[in-house]
Amino acid sequence: MTVLVFLDPAYENGRVADASKPQLMATDQGATRGDGIFESMLAVDGTPRKISAHLARLAASAETMDLVIPPADAWERAAATAIAEHPPARELVAKLLVTRGVEGAGSPTAWVQASVPGPSGRRQRESGIDVLLLDRGYDSTVAERAPWLLLGAKTLSYAVNMAALRYARKHGADDVIFTSSDGLVLEGPTSTVLTATVREGTRTLTTPLLESGVLPGTSQGALFSTAADAGWQLGYGPLVPQDLFGADAVWLVSSIRLMAPVRSIDGRKIPVSRELTDELTELLVKGSRE
Amino acid sequence: MTVLVFLDPAYENGRVADASKPQLMATDQGATRGDGIFESMLAVDGTPRKISAHLARLAASAETMDLVIPPADAWERAAATAIAEHPPARELVAKLLVTRGVEGAGSPTAWVQASVPGPSGRRQRESGIDVLLLDRGYDSTVAERAPWLLLGAKTLSYAVNMAALRYARKHGADDVIFTSSDGLVLEGPTSTVLTATVREGTRTLTTPLLESGVLPGTSQGALFSTAADAGWQLGYGPLVPQDLFGADAVWLVSSIRLMAPVRSIDGRKIPVSRELTDELTELLVKGSRE
Repeated sequence: MTVLVFLDPAYENGRVADASKPQLMATDQGATRGDGIFESMLAVDGTPRKISAHLARLAASAETMDLVIPPADAWERAAATAIAEHPPARELVAKLLVTRGVEGAGSPTAWVQASVPGPSGRRQRESGIDVLLLDRGYDSTVAERAPWLLLGAKTLSYAVNMAALRYARKHGADDVIFTSSDGLVLEGPTSTVLTATVREGTRTLTTPLLESGVLPGTSQGALFSTAADAGWQLGYGPLVPQDLFGADAVWLVSSIRLMAPVRSIDGRKIPVSRELTDELTELLVKGSRE
Repeated sequence: MTVLVFLDPAYENGRVADASKPQLMATDQGATRGDGIFESMLAVDGTPRKISAHLARLAASAETMDLVIPPADAWERAAATAIAEHPPARELVAKLLVTRGVEGAGSPTAWVQASVPGPSGRRQRESGIDVLLLDRGYDSTVAERAPWLLLGAKTLSYAVNMAALRYARKHGADDVIFTSSDGLVLEGPTSTVLTATVREGTRTLTTPLLESGVLPGTSQGALFSTAADAGWQLGYGPLVPQDLFGADAVWLVSSIRLMAPVRSIDGRKIPVSRELTDELTELLVKGSRE
């Protein structure tokens, strides 16, 4: 089941709506133009993980999109309502969505949706994933030159991300790592790329440069916040595909699926480490609680 | 007012819905991921213009998106219902929309929305528009290499197009002409670029190469279908910005606004020809009826 809670000034803790009935206007610009933003966060035993990081990124996306959205505390209360209204579950996905609203109305439509995560995330983080490298079409410097491309915002315009995933599945893979047209590793359609290398006792985690036009990963951020104390060196790219093939392990990291170990890239096997996955997942979870 | 007609197998001519009430599920992938496609067509005195071209492009977009959508005749009947249900108006916009539907449901959500066009289109085609050249980030060869970028599909993921228009307005312009990262002229966020040159008695209309990743313009197609008989040479790019500055007239062409004459590009005035605009608008309208 899905629980819907709309952010509505008339309801301090959000307005619970019947998710089995239509609740959006057909003229909402979220539906007609993908004109909005979102966040997906994991709630464990009723508590959302790293809610501040998600709300900070939502606010940053809103600013990039010239979208005025409800304040953080309204989102926190609506998310709490959505989680409380859902039958108890060990894990829930709490999705925060806000669109530019109905054309001409001038006010955004904002809601939280709580539901149980699908089974594929757990399966993939246990068994690993096969990925394809796909060209994202942009070079790694365009994000800074062309703010209208919204590269740092998590918008509702996800058709290309979904198409890339369908392309991967049609070609026998599970997921995608986008590359820039100038050959850098960027991100997954719904995840951040992370590599681990162990060289002469030095353990290093590396993720692509933010400036290359990737979304700042809240999970990668949570992991980095605890990994340094655990003895990891932390690095920001640039990464090229060869770095992925040369790493001791590669993951796609995201809020719901957590650390999904990459077991092959473009059909070529790469090392998978259960020990590293377990250690880093623990550090990620620890960082997500803080 | 807006009239909504959903395509529904239980209603041969479409199911009329109350547009003043929510009609979309909040979990529809159109709203949560911009995962769908659309067309906007003009109906004049109750008759949609170039409906076959719009339905053909909708079908092509669906194929690119792996989306199974209702057949053309169902769209035609639903559009006729939407137009008939609307109070009579000289001009109506009939928008056709189809999303991937509610997550897990496996069937698309398809509807037609009829409304009176906003006043800005008429104003802009009369007074002309100031445009900015903005980098679309893609090079002109990526469309053929990377089908997952959906460059030939008219998807609901329009956040970048809307952001480019906001950027233009913030910088004192009305509209945008996108360029490729390798310097070619592409298209407007919601229109096709067209130039006219008159050289030693030879009159030529030119539009960018389709292969460079632009949407095939239904209005440009309608115009080209009648312009040859009126003595115009027809050409497909490549066009570079210098060609725009050197042309005798430049337009952004689209189904609702028709021929909007460009009067400046990046603040630099270019020639505007009322005569050419009138002649070509007439040819466009003629081609749209056939």
